[in-house]
Amino acid sequence: MALAYFVGMKISLAQLNYHIGNFGGNAAKMKQAIEQAKADRCDLVVFSELSVCGYPPRDFLEFEDFIEECETVVSDLAKLSHDIAILVGAPVRNPLIEGKDLFNAAIFLHEGEVQHVAKKALLPTYDVFDEYRYFEPADEFDVIEYKGVRLAITVCEDIWNVGNENPMYRTCPMDHLITQKPDLAINLSASPFHWDQANVRTEVVQANVARYGIPMIYVNHVGAQTELIFDGGSLVVGAQGNVCRELPYFKEAQESVTLDHIKAESRDQSNDRNKNQLIHDAIILGLKDYFGKLGFTKAILGLSGGIDSALTAYFAAKALGPKNVKVLLMPSPYSSGHSVSDAEELVSNLGIDAELIRINELYEGFNQTLHPYFKDYDFDVTEENLQARIRGTLLMAFSNKEKYILLNTTNKSEMAVGYGTLYGDLCGGLSVIGDIYKTEVFEICRWINRAEEIIPSHIITKPPSAELRHDQKDSDSLPEYDLLDKVLVEYIENRRGPQEMIEMGIDEALVRRVLRLVNINEFKRYQTAPVLRVSRKAFGMGRRLPIVAKYLS
Amino acid sequence: MALAYFVGMKISLAQLNYHIGNFGGNAAKMKQAIEQAKADRCDLVVFSELSVCGYPPRDFLEFEDFIEECETVVSDLAKLSHDIAILVGAPVRNPLIEGKDLFNAAIFLHEGEVQHVAKKALLPTYDVFDEYRYFEPADEFDVIEYKGVRLAITVCEDIWNVGNENPMYRTCPMDHLITQKPDLAINLSASPFHWDQANVRTEVVQANVARYGIPMIYVNHVGAQTELIFDGGSLVVGAQGNVCRELPYFKEAQESVTLDHIKAESRDQSNDRNKNQLIHDAIILGLKDYFGKLGFTKAILGLSGGIDSALTAYFAAKALGPKNVKVLLMPSPYSSGHSVSDAEELVSNLGIDAELIRINELYEGFNQTLHPYFKDYDFDVTEENLQARIRGTLLMAFSNKEKYILLNTTNKSEMAVGYGTLYGDLCGGLSVIGDIYKTEVFEICRWINRAEEIIPSHIITKPPSAELRHDQKDSDSLPEYDLLDKVLVEYIENRRGPQEMIEMGIDEALVRRVLRLVNINEFKRYQTAPVLRVSRKAFGMGRRLPIVAKYLS
Repeated sequence: MALAYFVGMKISLAQLNYHIGNFGGNAAKMKQAIEQAKADRCDLVVFSELSVCGYPPRDFLEFEDFIEECETVVSDLAKLSHDIAILVGAPVRNPLIEGKDLFNAAIFLHEGEVQHVAKKALLPTYDVFDEYRYFEPADEFDVIEYKGVRLAITVCEDIWNVGNENPMYRTCPMDHLITQKPDLAINLSASPFHWDQANVRTEVVQANVARYGIPMIYVNHVGAQTELIFDGGSLVVGAQGNVCRELPYFKEAQESVTLDHIKAESRDQSNDRNKNQLIHDAIILGLKDYFGKLGFTKAILGLSGGIDSALTAYFAAKALGPKNVKVLLMPSPYSSGHSVSDAEELVSNLGIDAELIRINELYEGFNQTLHPYFKDYDFDVTEENLQARIRGTLLMAFSNKEKYILLNTTNKSEMAVGYGTLYGDLCGGLSVIGDIYKTEVFEICRWINRAEEIIPSHIITKPPSAELRHDQKDSDSLPEYDLLDKVLVEYIENRRGPQEMIEMGIDEALVRRVLRLVNINEFKRYQTAPVLRVSRKAFGMGRRLPIVAKYLS
Repeated sequence: MALAYFVGMKISLAQLNYHIGNFGGNAAKMKQAIEQAKADRCDLVVFSELSVCGYPPRDFLEFEDFIEECETVVSDLAKLSHDIAILVGAPVRNPLIEGKDLFNAAIFLHEGEVQHVAKKALLPTYDVFDEYRYFEPADEFDVIEYKGVRLAITVCEDIWNVGNENPMYRTCPMDHLITQKPDLAINLSASPFHWDQANVRTEVVQANVARYGIPMIYVNHVGAQTELIFDGGSLVVGAQGNVCRELPYFKEAQESVTLDHIKAESRDQSNDRNKNQLIHDAIILGLKDYFGKLGFTKAILGLSGGIDSALTAYFAAKALGPKNVKVLLMPSPYSSGHSVSDAEELVSNLGIDAELIRINELYEGFNQTLHPYFKDYDFDVTEENLQARIRGTLLMAFSNKEKYILLNTTNKSEMAVGYGTLYGDLCGGLSVIGDIYKTEVFEICRWINRAEEIIPSHIITKPPSAELRHDQKDSDSLPEYDLLDKVLVEYIENRRGPQEMIEMGIDEALVRRVLRLVNINEFKRYQTAPVLRVSRKAFGMGRRLPIVAKYLS
């Protein structure tokens, strides 16, 4: 009899976009999804990790008031669990005095009450994660039986220690749970996007299925939380490793499966895993949610005629609608003629709003004001930075006056080596392409132009220049970008040191020069806007280095 | 026989100022201290936590090259351990594949080799700490015998779970070690300063001595590492709880004791624990090390005539020498007459360099440039911010041209509520008083003036004003600072929520208003300079909150 019911159990995966701390909004979404699951005659609806409060709530978890708000939402949802079971993610209190005060848990609600609490054992505390800052790891593992089906419930990282060459933890929660002979594994996740994450995620779930021999349902968070983008892509994988469902990327979705389906079905390959497409869609979602969740609608940025601001403007127009994007063209005495004409062509292609404001007089004003002090000095980076800071000030004036959020247009290569002016072109509330290397910027622009020319080809083909002095080219002060990016990827993403790179055949002088530039510019990155993360290692919360140090510098 | 030697064992405490990643520099200092200890006929010299690389090395620990450099220093020091034993702090590799790759360890060197490795078990991962990001916790504890004395060696946090009402960990390493009947406990620390830390530290060491009944030697790091200041104050506490030695605060020191002394002596109360004195000395060290370790000598800042920039200028002059400090007085059309005269009086008192640069014309230039776009709008925060950004741009021009580091002059109350202009007065490489509330700024200035008037009294007594519009006062847009600071301390330091504050008798409207201001201004703090930490909870790495959220906002 149990087996007969088993194959018919119907489970709804609710892949939703939460807003951190917006308890009313999150609860309303979850209630709607519960109603939908009931209408679909589901037995169980599964939400993602820390769904009641949004992920990552960070130090809000240290506030009693915040935890009480979480508890209230869980109680409210429990009331809806009479003819369905509900699995929600929430912080729960540690009853012991010893240890951290909270657990990160999946709460199983049924018949109006909490019937089971599955606590997270593996607390990611690396890269962008800080979970041991808040949570005590679980050391007890229990399967719960529901309608004759034995469920092994875990939270996100709990399944990520499987299939690793260098496992970060000394235990695997599923190793304990499997001894209790579960029929189905369910994992509640909030696993942030990077461009290869869909592949990695699928491999991890399949590695778990292979090791434990039971099907797994994996429900992921979708939506952007400041710099972190969650791409969804929730999975249902059968005991044979068959991917029975993969929910869409970058949008909310709710789908249901029966255990019967899980056995038999394999997915249609509907989700495109093209790298450019994924990064593109991630940035769009990142922008949409940054503005939407903060209650802003309009973006402004400086359009230089170069490729970085062009790509940023494209993303803004796509995410917010062209009518909500204004650009300022702000040529200085050192700007080329094509800087304005290229920018104007892009403005026309995108259908965005633009103003041309020459900064010659303001630049002259600063030079005159500073003349008594600087008259014996040559033109140097000071005068270059002045131009960038005048532009930043103009952009911020529009931002203040008309409620635009200023977008930062710096790419990852520039961020890495400090090729940018603090309080100048490094201004902005959000860094849109700060996790995209310059060589990738070119690639994505060409990809965007694959069907029609949206970004004028001259912007893509001309030699990169900051145009802050006569006849300047980026290559005057930086290595060529293909060489630069190679070293940066090894250092930033792959954590390789100088000796390893030299052994790989990279020129030693280049390696030393680039690593030094990266390390001495930590102070600039410290003050730069949050960067939408699309790689495995972005600048910001996932990369933490001292400003004051003497290492490879 | 063992007992006879026991009481005569002589131990040197080396409280040194390390430079993160400066392996050559750190090793040279340690070698000198070892020679000194040998000259003093010591049996053992003890350094602080992670002394070979400096604390906190942060993500440098993820580089193989960095770990190899640490290992090289340890090997070099081992060669000096033939007629003395040496206890150094260093990362060591985890031989197991499972778990994090490193331990945070105290390494006991003697007879030319590593004789014992004591691994840290309690990994602080809260506030400014991220240790579980890098390290595996120890789960084995062994006493080592040296010259007949049984030593229980621990690292920093290992002793901090004792005497807590709400212990953060489920184990106390000393509970395990004490079963092996040690004679002496030694703790290697890198415990950052806040103004009450000397009291807390002494209590913790005494609580350990009381619980375990053996004396304890505690060697702390001294020196500033970007925002974190380590105050030293290394301790020797006898088995009766008697403080036999307390090394100086805020400077390097090396002292030796015999076990005989530890039994018998109590310290002379030489270290002043006056709150103002401690904060004052901490800021001075913070500034000195920020400049010294980065290889800079000169500071610049904007002097408004207000109390915050006055205090910042005082600290800079004291730390770097008046000849190395330049200030710009930059009155705008809205500046009062006394703003310049008060500033000039301070300049004269401090003996620093000053330039008066009126920004009226530059301000007019921006207004004219923006007139076509803004002509239908009223004067608002846009025009206020323009003045602040012009000043920031001028200061940064001097910084670029003449290699000054710009100091940020914002206080903690302003940082908290976002009362400051991003890319304007929030510019600067280091925030000097960003962890000092406005009411504390007044208190410290009065304390500085206790013997003679250094900060002109009119600067202290006049009503605070940003002077960015006619007849402006801070109290036009903020609550009075005594009320504001009360709410801020409860929210930021004490982690109290709105309900708790209302129950304490604080006005509800005030609470809601202030908490909202704090929460909606996270984006500004994200882009502000590192803040010298002097409280239990400073803005920056110790306080991590999402920018995009909807909580109490």
